[in-house]
Amino acid sequence: MGELTSFFRPDSLAVIGATRAQSKIGNAIIRNIIGCGYQGKIYPINPKEKEIEGLMSYPSVGAVPGDVEMAVLSVPAARVLTVARECGEKGVRALAVITAGFKEIGKKGLDLEKELLETCGRYGMQMLGPNCVGLMDTHTPINASFAATFPIKGDIAFLSQSGAILLAILDWSSAVGLGFSKVVSLGNKANLSEIDFIKDAANDPYTRVILCYIEDIVDGAHFLEVADWASKKKPIIVLKSGVSQAGAQAASSHTGALAGSDLAYDTAFAQCGIIRARNMTELFDLAVAFSKSVIPTGNRVAIVTNSGGPGIIATDNVELKGLAMARFDKKTIEDMRANLPEEAGIYNPVDVLGDAGVERFEFALEKVLTDPNVDSLLVLLCPTAVTQPVEVSQALIKARDAHPSKPVFAAYTGGKCLAGGADLLSSAGIPCFTFPEPAIECIRGLYNYSRHRSAVEVKDNGALPDLDKKTVKAVFYDVIKDRRLTLMGSEAAEVASAYGIPAAPIVLTTTPEEAVAAAGNLGYPVVLKVASPKILHKTDVGGVRIGIQTPEEVKQVFIEIMESVHRYLPKVIIYGIEVQKMMPKGTELIIGMTKDVQFGPLIAFGLGGIYVNLLKDVAFRLAGGLTSEKQIEEMLTETKAYTLLRGYRGEAPRDIAAVVDVIGRAARLVMDFPEINEMDINPLFAYKKGLSALDVKITIS
Amino acid sequence: MGELTSFFRPDSLAVIGATRAQSKIGNAIIRNIIGCGYQGKIYPINPKEKEIEGLMSYPSVGAVPGDVEMAVLSVPAARVLTVARECGEKGVRALAVITAGFKEIGKKGLDLEKELLETCGRYGMQMLGPNCVGLMDTHTPINASFAATFPIKGDIAFLSQSGAILLAILDWSSAVGLGFSKVVSLGNKANLSEIDFIKDAANDPYTRVILCYIEDIVDGAHFLEVADWASKKKPIIVLKSGVSQAGAQAASSHTGALAGSDLAYDTAFAQCGIIRARNMTELFDLAVAFSKSVIPTGNRVAIVTNSGGPGIIATDNVELKGLAMARFDKKTIEDMRANLPEEAGIYNPVDVLGDAGVERFEFALEKVLTDPNVDSLLVLLCPTAVTQPVEVSQALIKARDAHPSKPVFAAYTGGKCLAGGADLLSSAGIPCFTFPEPAIECIRGLYNYSRHRSAVEVKDNGALPDLDKKTVKAVFYDVIKDRRLTLMGSEAAEVASAYGIPAAPIVLTTTPEEAVAAAGNLGYPVVLKVASPKILHKTDVGGVRIGIQTPEEVKQVFIEIMESVHRYLPKVIIYGIEVQKMMPKGTELIIGMTKDVQFGPLIAFGLGGIYVNLLKDVAFRLAGGLTSEKQIEEMLTETKAYTLLRGYRGEAPRDIAAVVDVIGRAARLVMDFPEINEMDINPLFAYKKGLSALDVKITIS
Repeated sequence: MGELTSFFRPDSLAVIGATRAQSKIGNAIIRNIIGCGYQGKIYPINPKEKEIEGLMSYPSVGAVPGDVEMAVLSVPAARVLTVARECGEKGVRALAVITAGFKEIGKKGLDLEKELLETCGRYGMQMLGPNCVGLMDTHTPINASFAATFPIKGDIAFLSQSGAILLAILDWSSAVGLGFSKVVSLGNKANLSEIDFIKDAANDPYTRVILCYIEDIVDGAHFLEVADWASKKKPIIVLKSGVSQAGAQAASSHTGALAGSDLAYDTAFAQCGIIRARNMTELFDLAVAFSKSVIPTGNRVAIVTNSGGPGIIATDNVELKGLAMARFDKKTIEDMRANLPEEAGIYNPVDVLGDAGVERFEFALEKVLTDPNVDSLLVLLCPTAVTQPVEVSQALIKARDAHPSKPVFAAYTGGKCLAGGADLLSSAGIPCFTFPEPAIECIRGLYNYSRHRSAVEVKDNGALPDLDKKTVKAVFYDVIKDRRLTLMGSEAAEVASAYGIPAAPIVLTTTPEEAVAAAGNLGYPVVLKVASPKILHKTDVGGVRIGIQTPEEVKQVFIEIMESVHRYLPKVIIYGIEVQKMMPKGTELIIGMTKDVQFGPLIAFGLGGIYVNLLKDVAFRLAGGLTSEKQIEEMLTETKAYTLLRGYRGEAPRDIAAVVDVIGRAARLVMDFPEINEMDINPLFAYKKGLSALDVKITIS
Repeated sequence: MGELTSFFRPDSLAVIGATRAQSKIGNAIIRNIIGCGYQGKIYPINPKEKEIEGLMSYPSVGAVPGDVEMAVLSVPAARVLTVARECGEKGVRALAVITAGFKEIGKKGLDLEKELLETCGRYGMQMLGPNCVGLMDTHTPINASFAATFPIKGDIAFLSQSGAILLAILDWSSAVGLGFSKVVSLGNKANLSEIDFIKDAANDPYTRVILCYIEDIVDGAHFLEVADWASKKKPIIVLKSGVSQAGAQAASSHTGALAGSDLAYDTAFAQCGIIRARNMTELFDLAVAFSKSVIPTGNRVAIVTNSGGPGIIATDNVELKGLAMARFDKKTIEDMRANLPEEAGIYNPVDVLGDAGVERFEFALEKVLTDPNVDSLLVLLCPTAVTQPVEVSQALIKARDAHPSKPVFAAYTGGKCLAGGADLLSSAGIPCFTFPEPAIECIRGLYNYSRHRSAVEVKDNGALPDLDKKTVKAVFYDVIKDRRLTLMGSEAAEVASAYGIPAAPIVLTTTPEEAVAAAGNLGYPVVLKVASPKILHKTDVGGVRIGIQTPEEVKQVFIEIMESVHRYLPKVIIYGIEVQKMMPKGTELIIGMTKDVQFGPLIAFGLGGIYVNLLKDVAFRLAGGLTSEKQIEEMLTETKAYTLLRGYRGEAPRDIAAVVDVIGRAARLVMDFPEINEMDINPLFAYKKGLSALDVKITIS
């Protein structure tokens, strides 16, 4: 979409639908623009007025004497198209359409929205909205919105898909003293979306943190690409709502059933380094943390406290959140032993005791921050008779300034007694909470982000050998010609084999004699399975028989299966019987693929077999994020299956390298062939050496 | 411990160690007692003073002319024993020992604490502390503490094992306007503990909610009994710290390894209806909710909002927290359709839209609360141009008053705009948060408590038939005589069988001939296992052989096992070879027992077999809470094993009734024989009809 400077730093700006009536949105906008101190030219547009809020009013945008870079539209929906055309003719670059009555009201509105988008396209205009509150930039400054509050200047860019939440947060943030660089109401996202504004904010020198409230993402692939790039420059914290079961998809495959509605977002966000807030409190706690704090280089937290209880609570939380309590250097401990009272806690947490004056804090803070085994610091203060909160805060600020590379947080548990000290910290840029737990949650967020940012760019596997695209194409061609969407086992095995996935040999036969011949070629024992794309649960209709040892048995079982299936499902078309070589039993795994409507194919890996949905031991990744062995290995380690593969309770280890290879091939297969809709390889037997895919299910679309 | 009236409502009170020096604790206490408005007689005790804070001072408690019901001790530790004796002689009933220098400083202090406790016992005095801040009751009023703040009168009793946290919370609560009925600093809990104060608070007419911060529980069984009783009268909310891995116990059994250090607390709290707060924010959010709100009768939440975004966030959270979005009555929906604008959301969440005046809220609130399918209500308000927060609050208060049996919560997301409305709600007793999520967390807490309170008292199983205690005693006697703590497989099977647990028949033999005879009696095929209490992993040393079909094979395998074990472990004493009937394969389960130092035996049930620690599909209960079928069935439903037992993916259901019976018997066994230290029944095979315990491991102490 290119630069958004025409929105955030326009030289001139028209408010179309400006009015003198104080109760109207068109008046609020013009007052906001004037009131925020905007330095460009302002043109109110209203054919019925000569002057609005002290500015000369024009009958139309076309009547404005000079250039108009940006236009804010607050006219009835029925007039928006006409006005947009006038703006186009005038050479306006950016439209902020406040007007509602588009996609959100149904079909008629959607049609209007499409026409509006088309008009913008024709004139090369960018558009925010429609149906939005507008946008703000505190550094320009510009306030092209009807919000009642203009935020304090700050370094957080806030993008919101909900206008109500945006207004609520503006009101709330002014009360608590939280500042913003930019605030954008995304509205219906007909043209510009969170993608464009994330990109813009990532490049904005005044923005340190990007905060988003979103309800949906339209172009998943593009979002991932931009977010991945932007999150390496600045932290992106997202509250994504709409996670409840209501939105869960119905799915016929194992993999599909295992992937909940929210899983794709979780996976995608994790993969592109987005920090996902679980609730609004966390969203803003993290915003403060990221805007004020440096990023830690490790997960080792030191705690300095003047009382035992909060120290214990904080220690619990550090471990609960996957961080580590720092183990101090020997020198640090010796120094503390020599300088702190005998009863003081000199290991982590450092307890300087309830009777500590500021000197003890000064000493302990400096020691702890100097220790090379400490990555971040949390100071806990409770009011006691001798507590000097302001002095302790001053000491903490001094220590932080002396060690600017280590994040410093505080939890001052108290009210009036500690308020002066807490205020001092906040104004010095040290996040100060009432209770320890949110502080630790923030340190965790910072640490997780640091891991993402420092992750070495992994190299692509490059061209996997032996990928036979032609065969896959041919199979799909035949299936579609046969007016099916589900592959038969032998077809799926052929597809898998073509990509180097070791499917157990399987042959479709149509007569007992063919079956005997096939079995002879494969070698005994064999398995016979009914071949019919319409039969999902073959075992239930007597359609699978294992352990067949002789040609006679093959003949007899062929006939028995046919009879049994006909009895259960007299109307189903049977393509024949598939004869498969019976493979020795191995560790049962699943590799699967389900498709997310936004983010595309998701690869699943875990414990397989018939209990796969019961055990739910499955890790997910976007297929696009599995192009290196390192990425795949990381995925493996999230599963219990991995513990088994490494050799559990004295068992011999399984061929993990082969598993990694096959996951990479499965990911490549589904990316190379977007027509693959779902895939289950279950069970995939893992042996000491090699693998065997017993059952491959593929549906295409 | 009986009544605590001598602490909370003494007629007279001595402060031993009272002083004129304003900086001393002994002065703070006397000032606090006078300042809080205490109506009884106050006697400062200090041999060096004639008058303290306007009151006549006495040289010793014995010198006081009248009775002294309670004494607060703030003298050096070295003088505490003498003073306590004087108090005993004087007939003092209650001692609050502020003085530190006892158990917390080590052995010497612990000895002193024991002597102090003995002195109190001798005179029949109750004691709080030592090493505590003191206690308060806002309704008496009494403030026998050195805290700088006396709380607002309220209905929350707060018990804290940490003095620092108590002081911090007092300071903080005054700032946020939270009131307390009682505040108790538990100190070292040498005599009175949380158990006594929970009992007292449960009977206190001024207390509605009991809030505890605790770090350990000393008498688990007594705590459970009192908490179970008290929680049926009033909600008990506990923040228990010290949950981190540091405290995890090492354990040799499967069950022990599966039960983390914190599991016993979680299990015990759940079983006696305690609401466990996960952090300090939640502790106090829940305190407010329980003190202000009625308890809902169900989990169906209605949401009324003036904006979409927060409605979506709240809906997500309702489902995430295990609550349900109410489905309105047809009548409710019709009425709303007829009376709200077309664009309004008339299903749940009800969206009265951003332009809603108070009338729409009034209408929707009344409709929703009248609906019989609604158990509780959450109102979300965002500031818009027309929002009338004060009027909406008035409407909400009116609606709540008209439907007093349904909990009503609010989340007003905003700052100054909404402050008036939010304050009005708070003062009318409707909890109002900034963001929706904590409100929903509170509704969940209320609902969980309602389930506990309404749980029908379950009837005891009564005497299970066929419990042969004599046999168990005899086996244990023999094992101890043999100087062992681990039972051999045949012994453990005998113990299990004596309690009606269907152990697979197993016989200890010492010669190949005995083994052949045993196998003949049991019937082929059989399993041979080396019998040695020192060998934990029999398979690893070639000590187990299965599927033995003939007498010849028995003989040969007997010798092979002996040789193999001797080769691996030449020094280990072998008791012989156990011959076990080989049972058909069934669904693999585990029933186990591990012991918690506080709460006694914990019974585990779940998926068994060699992957038990990998799958971690295990539910835990205190053995004492498994005396009825209903309780056991509830435990079963928490496991994936239960899904299997019911018949998974077309398999035949297993004998669930037998599983329930055996869990009950296992619980009874470990309660009847406290000498059983650990027990693993794994695998326990479940069949369509009946069960078979393949391997029973028991250690005693």
